[in-house]
Amino acid sequence: MREMILVGFLQAQNCSNFAGSWRHPESRADFASPDFYAHIGKVLEAGKFHLAFFDDRLGMPEFHGGDFTEAVANGIRCVKMDPIACLMPIAMSTSRMGVGATYSTTYYQPFHVARLFQTLDLMTKGRAAWNVVTSMNDVEARNMGLDQAIEHDARYDRADEFLEVVTGHWNTWADDALLVDKSTGQFADPNKVQRLDHVGKHFRSRGPFTVPRTPQGHPVVIQAGQSGRGRAFAARWGELIFTSNPHINAARANYLSLKQDCADNGRNPDYMKLAALCHPIVAETRAEAEDKFELIERLPVEADSLMLLSEALNFDFGSRPIDEPFSDEELAGMTGTQTTRDRVLAESGKKNPTTQDFIDVTRRGKLPPPWIGSAKEVADIFEEWFMSPACDGFVVGAGCVPGSYEDFVKFVVPELQKRGLLHDDYRGATLRDNLGLPRPCGRS
Amino acid sequence: MREMILVGFLQAQNCSNFAGSWRHPESRADFASPDFYAHIGKVLEAGKFHLAFFDDRLGMPEFHGGDFTEAVANGIRCVKMDPIACLMPIAMSTSRMGVGATYSTTYYQPFHVARLFQTLDLMTKGRAAWNVVTSMNDVEARNMGLDQAIEHDARYDRADEFLEVVTGHWNTWADDALLVDKSTGQFADPNKVQRLDHVGKHFRSRGPFTVPRTPQGHPVVIQAGQSGRGRAFAARWGELIFTSNPHINAARANYLSLKQDCADNGRNPDYMKLAALCHPIVAETRAEAEDKFELIERLPVEADSLMLLSEALNFDFGSRPIDEPFSDEELAGMTGTQTTRDRVLAESGKKNPTTQDFIDVTRRGKLPPPWIGSAKEVADIFEEWFMSPACDGFVVGAGCVPGSYEDFVKFVVPELQKRGLLHDDYRGATLRDNLGLPRPCGRS
Repeated sequence: MREMILVGFLQAQNCSNFAGSWRHPESRADFASPDFYAHIGKVLEAGKFHLAFFDDRLGMPEFHGGDFTEAVANGIRCVKMDPIACLMPIAMSTSRMGVGATYSTTYYQPFHVARLFQTLDLMTKGRAAWNVVTSMNDVEARNMGLDQAIEHDARYDRADEFLEVVTGHWNTWADDALLVDKSTGQFADPNKVQRLDHVGKHFRSRGPFTVPRTPQGHPVVIQAGQSGRGRAFAARWGELIFTSNPHINAARANYLSLKQDCADNGRNPDYMKLAALCHPIVAETRAEAEDKFELIERLPVEADSLMLLSEALNFDFGSRPIDEPFSDEELAGMTGTQTTRDRVLAESGKKNPTTQDFIDVTRRGKLPPPWIGSAKEVADIFEEWFMSPACDGFVVGAGCVPGSYEDFVKFVVPELQKRGLLHDDYRGATLRDNLGLPRPCGRS
Repeated sequence: MREMILVGFLQAQNCSNFAGSWRHPESRADFASPDFYAHIGKVLEAGKFHLAFFDDRLGMPEFHGGDFTEAVANGIRCVKMDPIACLMPIAMSTSRMGVGATYSTTYYQPFHVARLFQTLDLMTKGRAAWNVVTSMNDVEARNMGLDQAIEHDARYDRADEFLEVVTGHWNTWADDALLVDKSTGQFADPNKVQRLDHVGKHFRSRGPFTVPRTPQGHPVVIQAGQSGRGRAFAARWGELIFTSNPHINAARANYLSLKQDCADNGRNPDYMKLAALCHPIVAETRAEAEDKFELIERLPVEADSLMLLSEALNFDFGSRPIDEPFSDEELAGMTGTQTTRDRVLAESGKKNPTTQDFIDVTRRGKLPPPWIGSAKEVADIFEEWFMSPACDGFVVGAGCVPGSYEDFVKFVVPELQKRGLLHDDYRGATLRDNLGLPRPCGRS
């Protein structure tokens, strides 16, 4: 019997993915303290979340010419901390929930990423996951030694090779390589460790890898790219896929299509789980939940939308009239999340949409379209999406931290458990066990 | 009144810096578990250690031609995990002791290292330190995309610029930049955050940095290079310096010389603390301590020495008769820790020493020359070195983990406290407070 997967969508920053969240009266202000993250971890584990994971971006939003004033003044994701360090208090204050972090394939060596996440997997006893991103923003490039981000498809070509190296290293130790036999002095079997000897177009990494296998073999690979090239990448590598579709019909079609892509890659589509991004707002009654949403809708300022559109599309939305249509050339020059641009073209019905159209369609800077209601009403939506199926589980975003998660765990989780849709407790010791993913084969 | 600094010298691997330690009957075999590191952290904090830190190396030892068989079979540091991930359980199971990790200036972008360690400093409430190394081994280069390690002095030129970028980013936020005022919507003062705009020979990094200041401003910078170029680097950047001299007279001369170099750089030498590497073996009585040492001396195998000499000197010691003198060219080709080579030349009294001379002088593969005795006897040595002064504190290495630390905390720590040489408890909240280091100035 299928059971849904729950993922907490966390940010190592001053707000949730909803920039205005820090202005919420109930949001905690100690986002730069371990206590904040430890608390979130405990809330999510009490709600039997399968995984809590951090997104990442290696820079802060800005307008054209590098003006970051509005980002800092308004707290528009201007704090962006290292996700591994922020994961630390969550990992160490939980014992069953998985923990994941985003790391880019563009600005690190694959040996480093392989070693870091494999060690994280050991230090969490098999609960680690790596969310693979390719880093699309010029602001990131300029912090990390380049002038501008690498072109979209080239980033994914590089990412493909990056994954070959990382998973390659992970699998160079056999599961039973370690002996640690003091009586014979045999530490490990050298025939069960091999070098990777990777020599490719973008990377060289020889090995031998210096981290043994973990209780779940190696970390779970997460991916979220939704462009054409991103989907091909996900179909090849992703074990847990984050999807973002506001409408169930589109999500359902996307679900079938991604599962088919996975099968076409020779993989078992049951071993690629899709989790849909959602923003539940729940309370004792629907009326109370609507009041909560009204409060949240009053939090954004205009700069939130303009800066975050600029960041997402890698394009300057700050220096033009809000009602001026974009030219074809301008639209083609948006090199960030291309699916976002394409959705605006489709849903606005305009060949040349304006900034206002981008705001209206994407709600960027505002809370993404929420699911609002009582426990039963919100659980109904979860059930419909899950049973449809439009997904195998959910990535739960927050309008207010930790309040949104506390509400969700208090109201929705028991309802989902009552309906048999969500596990009552963790079934296994590792993240793979709990996600229903197979243990990867190491060298034998 | 001066008080000594105590540092635990930890390794994210299957043994201590003494490779044979894993074969010790009392060594724990769960080196790949968080419980192991959490236990060490608690032991050291109970002993009021100022800092626990992890060394690092991005590869495993090998012989010429890449033969790693002996390293894996004998457990000669063949497991080398990410130090930040292994630090996690220590950081989260202690609350006063500092925590540090080694990160290379050769294989990462400085923006990444700046962000990682600044976030670590926040997540530990001001207890973080970064040990700067330049990565000397070809095995590391081959894992990280290069054919061989960068030449010695060039590594330090690069490291100098790396530190300019890292400390530059750390200081681009004013201490009072954050406002987090929900009533006005002012998150931070944009006049108190600036871009670094670094454009140099090796690095470009623009900013603005995305992590605010920490309770101690930013992490403490540790350094251990002892070559000429390494010392110049330490005199410029190091706040805590690890030194390694088996003889007190050499250590005393080195102490004066490094402090003078620091002053010549326009820095206050009181703000550069020197900690001497030592390996105490202590028990109720001297006889018992000597028995402990005898057991430890039986643990090494010959491959330990040959592989670790190869690694330290970046030179193949495995494929030649043990008594064959090295030629001048061969000695010049040792590109690793040059002070080690020079010490063998000096102490063997030979212009062309043999592998056996390298083993005898360096004891590489064996426990470095230990300080053995009862609590009083070992404390006498600590007192002599500290009062001389040959150092401001000690980096304590272990023959057996966690046993060596448990013994040290049980026997030596109370004796040092009784003599007024070591604090009875942590005096401040941050690592800088406890080390007696000033808070760095951020932008004002």
